[in-house]
Amino acid sequence: MQVKTVTLNKSVFADNDAEAERLRCELKEKGLLLVNVMSSPGAGKTSVLSSLIDRLDAKVGVMEADIDGDLDAQAIAKKASRAVQLHTQGMCHVDATMTRQGMDEMGIEGLDLVFLENVGNLVCPAEYDTGAHLDMTILSVPEGDDKPLKYPLIYEKCSLVLINKIDTLSYFDFDLEKCKEHILFRNPNAKIIEVSAKTGEGMDEVAKYFEDLLETFKK
Amino acid sequence: MQVKTVTLNKSVFADNDAEAERLRCELKEKGLLLVNVMSSPGAGKTSVLSSLIDRLDAKVGVMEADIDGDLDAQAIAKKASRAVQLHTQGMCHVDATMTRQGMDEMGIEGLDLVFLENVGNLVCPAEYDTGAHLDMTILSVPEGDDKPLKYPLIYEKCSLVLINKIDTLSYFDFDLEKCKEHILFRNPNAKIIEVSAKTGEGMDEVAKYFEDLLETFKK
Repeated sequence: MQVKTVTLNKSVFADNDAEAERLRCELKEKGLLLVNVMSSPGAGKTSVLSSLIDRLDAKVGVMEADIDGDLDAQAIAKKASRAVQLHTQGMCHVDATMTRQGMDEMGIEGLDLVFLENVGNLVCPAEYDTGAHLDMTILSVPEGDDKPLKYPLIYEKCSLVLINKIDTLSYFDFDLEKCKEHILFRNPNAKIIEVSAKTGEGMDEVAKYFEDLLETFKK
Repeated sequence: MQVKTVTLNKSVFADNDAEAERLRCELKEKGLLLVNVMSSPGAGKTSVLSSLIDRLDAKVGVMEADIDGDLDAQAIAKKASRAVQLHTQGMCHVDATMTRQGMDEMGIEGLDLVFLENVGNLVCPAEYDTGAHLDMTILSVPEGDDKPLKYPLIYEKCSLVLINKIDTLSYFDFDLEKCKEHILFRNPNAKIIEVSAKTGEGMDEVAKYFEDLLETFKK
């Protein structure tokens, strides 16, 4: 699949929250679920999405936001029904206007689900509502169990947290129970799933989560 | 050691670059080397600094910038001559005014070298000159060899790049030669050292780099 690269422009709206709410409602009316995926650089956003799309019986589009390059879009294009590379012009996050621009360029007709893979960053992306119906984050074992203590907002905002690279647990000083405590300290309602995009561990549970979500969403 | 936590205020200077240059000159006159350490969350800034300080025959101060928590300052306080925790009030970076405020609160008398451990983030910290004499970054093996392709500015700006967690190379799909190519593509003059803060591999070379730098700097 040929992957288009789109250069995004910053929001012209003073109130990003209002534009995000507008986009969220429009997509809901169309029955299209938008998911905002955030994490540190290298936590495994693209590989988790690749593994997940393989397991989903749904038409999936993926928008890969990066400052430069199109490696992730090239990788995901082999899996998704549709994919687009978004360039943020050096910006550290994606806002609602940028999200809409990405969807317009990719085309959303016939899709059930769109993943926005945000810029790898635990701070800024959490500050901008993209219009997504679900915010999720991926914490990888090599990063350490203390991330929710250091980056509060992203963990407060995300209702789904995947702990990725769980297959490397024995190589790192990572306290899984403490990590879960830290996540739930920021958001007591967060759903936590341990996964390895590499071995596939836990990925069926993630797929089940999204299938249930899609079913509820379409009602 | 009791670790003080300082809440930082944003720069009041319209021109951060000018304030950074002023700070850099003042510190140079005092013979105090300031090093800005940047990386993704969890790449190993604190553990690399701990391992490095053990090897340095110098009076070292460390400023730990985080959005929340004081875990890193508690850890580094066992090693450094002086340490302070800086809270950025949710901000994704540290600017020159914040750096000066941190140094004033920590106290710099008698120190040879101060490390500023910036907020874990590959985007925003690279955009703000802190007044440091050296910018360095740490890329850890689990993050992947493609980071310099995705986050251009930080690699363009840093003249020292440590590839950390080198002891985990066999567990990850990480092409060391390609990674070095990507780093040198962004900055052909970058000094690259492979290290493991955990096993100590490569850390003597890093210590030698800083000892040479201090010698030149004090002249």
